[in-house]
Amino acid sequence: MSAVHRWDLLTREEIAELAPSALLVMPIGSTEQHGPHLVTGTDAHLATIFAERAAERAKRPEDIVIAPTLAYGASHHHLPFGGTLSLGTHTLGLLLEDLLGSAASTGFRRLFIVNTHGGNTVTCSAAAAEAARAHGLVAATALTTDLVDPATIDGPRHGHAGVFETSLMLALDPDTVRVDKLRPSPGGAARIRRRGLVVAEPGRWEELDGFTDDPQSASVERGERALAACVEALAAAFEDIAMLGA
Amino acid sequence: MSAVHRWDLLTREEIAELAPSALLVMPIGSTEQHGPHLVTGTDAHLATIFAERAAERAKRPEDIVIAPTLAYGASHHHLPFGGTLSLGTHTLGLLLEDLLGSAASTGFRRLFIVNTHGGNTVTCSAAAAEAARAHGLVAATALTTDLVDPATIDGPRHGHAGVFETSLMLALDPDTVRVDKLRPSPGGAARIRRRGLVVAEPGRWEELDGFTDDPQSASVERGERALAACVEALAAAFEDIAMLGA
Amino acid sequence: MSAVHRWDLLTREEIAELAPSALLVMPIGSTEQHGPHLVTGTDAHLATIFAERAAERAKRPEDIVIAPTLAYGASHHHLPFGGTLSLGTHTLGLLLEDLLGSAASTGFRRLFIVNTHGGNTVTCSAAAAEAARAHGLVAATALTTDLVDPATIDGPRHGHAGVFETSLMLALDPDTVRVDKLRPSPGGAARIRRRGLVVAEPGRWEELDGFTDDPQSASVERGERALAACVEALAAAFEDIAMLGA
Amino acid sequence: MSAVHRWDLLTREEIAELAPSALLVMPIGSTEQHGPHLVTGTDAHLATIFAERAAERAKRPEDIVIAPTLAYGASHHHLPFGGTLSLGTHTLGLLLEDLLGSAASTGFRRLFIVNTHGGNTVTCSAAAAEAARAHGLVAATALTTDLVDPATIDGPRHGHAGVFETSLMLALDPDTVRVDKLRPSPGGAARIRRRGLVVAEPGRWEELDGFTDDPQSASVERGERALAACVEALAAAFEDIAMLGA
Amino acid sequence: MSAVHRWDLLTREEIAELAPSALLVMPIGSTEQHGPHLVTGTDAHLATIFAERAAERAKRPEDIVIAPTLAYGASHHHLPFGGTLSLGTHTLGLLLEDLLGSAASTGFRRLFIVNTHGGNTVTCSAAAAEAARAHGLVAATALTTDLVDPATIDGPRHGHAGVFETSLMLALDPDTVRVDKLRPSPGGAARIRRRGLVVAEPGRWEELDGFTDDPQSASVERGERALAACVEALAAAFEDIAMLGA
Amino acid sequence: MSAVHRWDLLTREEIAELAPSALLVMPIGSTEQHGPHLVTGTDAHLATIFAERAAERAKRPEDIVIAPTLAYGASHHHLPFGGTLSLGTHTLGLLLEDLLGSAASTGFRRLFIVNTHGGNTVTCSAAAAEAARAHGLVAATALTTDLVDPATIDGPRHGHAGVFETSLMLALDPDTVRVDKLRPSPGGAARIRRRGLVVAEPGRWEELDGFTDDPQSASVERGERALAACVEALAAAFEDIAMLGA
Repeated sequence: MSAVHRWDLLTREEIAELAPSALLVMPIGSTEQHGPHLVTGTDAHLATIFAERAAERAKRPEDIVIAPTLAYGASHHHLPFGGTLSLGTHTLGLLLEDLLGSAASTGFRRLFIVNTHGGNTVTCSAAAAEAARAHGLVAATALTTDLVDPATIDGPRHGHAGVFETSLMLALDPDTVRVDKLRPSPGGAARIRRRGLVVAEPGRWEELDGFTDDPQSASVERGERALAACVEALAAAFEDIAMLGA
Repeated sequence: MSAVHRWDLLTREEIAELAPSALLVMPIGSTEQHGPHLVTGTDAHLATIFAERAAERAKRPEDIVIAPTLAYGASHHHLPFGGTLSLGTHTLGLLLEDLLGSAASTGFRRLFIVNTHGGNTVTCSAAAAEAARAHGLVAATALTTDLVDPATIDGPRHGHAGVFETSLMLALDPDTVRVDKLRPSPGGAARIRRRGLVVAEPGRWEELDGFTDDPQSASVERGERALAACVEALAAAFEDIAMLGA
Repeated sequence: MSAVHRWDLLTREEIAELAPSALLVMPIGSTEQHGPHLVTGTDAHLATIFAERAAERAKRPEDIVIAPTLAYGASHHHLPFGGTLSLGTHTLGLLLEDLLGSAASTGFRRLFIVNTHGGNTVTCSAAAAEAARAHGLVAATALTTDLVDPATIDGPRHGHAGVFETSLMLALDPDTVRVDKLRPSPGGAARIRRRGLVVAEPGRWEELDGFTDDPQSASVERGERALAACVEALAAAFEDIAMLGA
Repeated sequence: MSAVHRWDLLTREEIAELAPSALLVMPIGSTEQHGPHLVTGTDAHLATIFAERAAERAKRPEDIVIAPTLAYGASHHHLPFGGTLSLGTHTLGLLLEDLLGSAASTGFRRLFIVNTHGGNTVTCSAAAAEAARAHGLVAATALTTDLVDPATIDGPRHGHAGVFETSLMLALDPDTVRVDKLRPSPGGAARIRRRGLVVAEPGRWEELDGFTDDPQSASVERGERALAACVEALAAAFEDIAMLGA
Repeated sequence: MSAVHRWDLLTREEIAELAPSALLVMPIGSTEQHGPHLVTGTDAHLATIFAERAAERAKRPEDIVIAPTLAYGASHHHLPFGGTLSLGTHTLGLLLEDLLGSAASTGFRRLFIVNTHGGNTVTCSAAAAEAARAHGLVAATALTTDLVDPATIDGPRHGHAGVFETSLMLALDPDTVRVDKLRPSPGGAARIRRRGLVVAEPGRWEELDGFTDDPQSASVERGERALAACVEALAAAFEDIAMLGA
Repeated sequence: MSAVHRWDLLTREEIAELAPSALLVMPIGSTEQHGPHLVTGTDAHLATIFAERAAERAKRPEDIVIAPTLAYGASHHHLPFGGTLSLGTHTLGLLLEDLLGSAASTGFRRLFIVNTHGGNTVTCSAAAAEAARAHGLVAATALTTDLVDPATIDGPRHGHAGVFETSLMLALDPDTVRVDKLRPSPGGAARIRRRGLVVAEPGRWEELDGFTDDPQSASVERGERALAACVEALAAAFEDIAMLGA
């Protein structure tokens, strides 16, 4: 039995008692196409796993409360592939504003949005900044994969449904990987990689058939290394934030 | 192994193939205070259970796809009690509009929002109406408890964290019920009950201490009767909607 | 001369004096197609009549102030038939929020939205709930026909431009009924009627030619019975609300 | 019996037939404080009267359809006086956008917003411009008093609840004027009057006690002159617009 | 070296010190097509020039702070001609609300929006009214050309890219005028000119080829007269507002 | 005379001709407090300078059009210091959506938002992504300082009004630097620096007195190095994007 608290399994009084000193962890993923080989719930599943395991691994798990995972994110760019239930970025922004405001209203002073979907990143950052300004919350967020060095698994890191995520799912839930569908993305590598440059290129996801790099190179072993690296980095980040405002 | 499909465990191609003929079931609950005796995840948990069991019981479970449960609803009236993570009704409306539009975009033609939280009801109804108008979807919704006759458990039906919900949780997850906190709501019965009259009375939830009627009268047996009645009614409603537009 | 007060015929000081102890009644209807036989102003006209007569019939008419009727409601589903001036539900929600906030600002503590158009129902309920929460108002609303038993006129009750409304208009303003256009709706009865189930079915209004059941069965006598039942129930509901928070 | 058509007294088919060649007239006023001497419904009443009489006086009254008067306008600056039911300008903008879009959808090609409340002016102008752009409508609007020369009644013209409006109400509905409350505004004349300069000065309405100039100088005779001038100018403007796009 | 202050060339402390007693001048123009003969930056350029010169000419230039010019305005009606970067009126409204609120937050008590683009007028007026109401600011605005008598240059005044603006640009920046493209607008004079009547006529800008009257009649001399008149009137208006609330 | 085009100095026809093959560069900065030593227009000034110089240095300057600089950005976190004119992030998002849509409407196919203010970053990224999705634009953006290695000036890079920006202003406009106010930020270094972790900490800007690191270490020489590095990296990024979709 874990020492980490789950919001949904506590009563109002139990939560109110924990709030002032605890770190609130809010996992958010997406429900979106992940190529022909991964299931659409991949991001939401990873957000839940990362949040739970990092909380357990952190120094004081008993000072962490995990909120219910938000399984929906900003995935409008994946709608053309089907299999996607997406929130507009404006909707997601309002949703996070409401949830972070609710957390402050219950008495929390520190929170951490654990995000596994690149499309949510800017909205999570904006929500954290606004919550600090409007409610005085110490508010942190990270796209989990941004926390770890790509060299960890000797491969591309930020891919969508590529070797990184496919390895993770092979390690965590091999039954969800459609092994017979594994093949390299037809779209090749990005045309431009330049430090600090953000490029939105229409039709790029279609060129890639909705996933990046080469999921065929995925392996259980790489997945285990990736999982360990993400959980470790996230646990350390939880400890960083738990310390602030203490 | 259930014949019912789960969106998050399917790939985009598998979902696209099911969409035109399947019924999409979207469970929505809340994360909100449920008195001193029930956990805050009660509604979201019930939405998941009701949706899954009704889908399994329906005539053609293999023609049903269940989306990930939305654990957050419109609970602003419960914020003062703490323990509540609430969406504003405007936010919830946009969220449902986005999700229903996504479902239509993937090819679904029939969907059913299974709702267990009274505060979501008007927003779910409005979203269903709009989805029919904007996307040509057959869109249904029900507050689960509205589907069954209150006489089923010989007691008040629409309560919040009252005998009905407490009985259900005793039957489903007895560990989540704080039995030592069970007591009647101090607020007594509603001052007004008139057919068709909707009354919003400030301070009423505070009078009630955030829950209705008498949870002390809850029992496993009543919970099992309530569960059976809800699942049966919901399964029948699924069959009604699956038939439309066929 | 009626003892009931009309907001538009009072000065600011006269209203301010009445506000703390009076019930504010806000009639809302629609301006929308009502089949080939009823005029588009039917709902707004009925809202005005119901509100005025119920106020006069209530125990203390001198404690009731009636606001100007809002002749426009949420009728987007009727736009394809023409003859319809509709507000989106978001617009209607903001409008009610503004008006209810204004009423609170002037000092009213109890109000009642008298609604005669089904399309407004969820928005009126949401506005009442929000006004209670934000302004501490006792806020009630009813779709007038929901207040009475369908058996009253031995026929279907919730229809749009059907036997119920046509009878009412025959009793109130026979000149507005295009008697030569009366015929049964071609769309037949609803495919599904299940306790608590809300269904939005695209194309359904077109099947019905924009009105329900059989207006040919309408009669002055039925209209008088319907009118009396609605006014009586509404007057009783006014008394209920006037009593709250006293 | 007037030749002018009233939208609310027509069926959908009757409206659809008139729409392509008729001018749609939409009266909008306000429900707001008008000093201690005039009733809060003054603007809405005047909008209705002006629209009806001008339509009757225009060359082809049978080519005019009058929509139900919108009794609510943007009056937030009058809320502190009480007696005011106000829409925010954003709400009013959405409302007009919805109504004008509905009119276009029914087949109208020309419309005229008859406005009697200064606070609505910019929103009416913006809505007309947008309706022209978005729906191809010929869309006109005027603040009725802007159509006539102030010299007409030998006095200040643009006042709120001043000599101009008080004279009009004395001529139209003398019972609504609280004669014993008539007195000059304590705020004196505007500090700045410069061609083309728009000034918003906080606290100015409070200084004026909510009305301008000197209502004591009002008279039935002045009201009749004002009424005749407004109706004549508005009728001529209707003819201008009816001619456009013909 | 001018005595007028420029916000962007001051530090926070320097601005805070000036704010309570200074007039804040905010120039706003547009970036939009100005026919084949004028550059798209015409309005923004004129807003800057007018604001600076009027501030210098005013009695106490050292009590004026000029904010950076907003080069973008509400020009959706010019989008079809190309060369236009336009804000929707809703966006412009929010932008002005944010900037005026910021100004109040820094301690300013008087401000003046100098506007050179007709399409911004109603939004500037609404923003000024709202800033007075919400922040207690004395807030003024003028469309610069509205401040001067059309007779000043013996010609039409309110034109877009017509003789008035072309003359101004000939006087200020002759290199920006494409003299070989000068020709009269093919659309002729407005069909309707009536005191107080606002008309939005679809297709009218296309008829005019995007500019009004006859730019061929423009001259340096007329431009100099127009410039002098605008600057003089604006300087006087600045003095009016600087005096209020002092 | 530069070969680079400026939107505001072109006519509509000249812009339309360039649009299909040119890169549109949109500079955006902020008007916000920059400590006691730098002027509030620093970011807007740098955005203009960086965009112009990088465009001139790029391989084909004649294929670049620069839009007017937007001097206002999302700076709500700086409002408490005064001297700040800020847009909310929602407003800024709408503004960018409108401008990028306008650019697409004029025929541009590639654009680049040059941003010098950290608070705008997430909104610029979101706008670029949306423009690609909605209008098929190749849309890029960069926070200029993110393009260069911090080692370039042997110091901290991302500071606000710190050594980096102060050096730049010393190199570009030494008159704008209040040299007598230079001192180290009292807030010290960030408590947490972790790869990929975003932290919003309430009160942090106040601790820092509104600026970071040590502006006293600024020098003209460092500013020249920083300027050269930013311009070179930006020019290269322009070339990258100009190449896409060619």
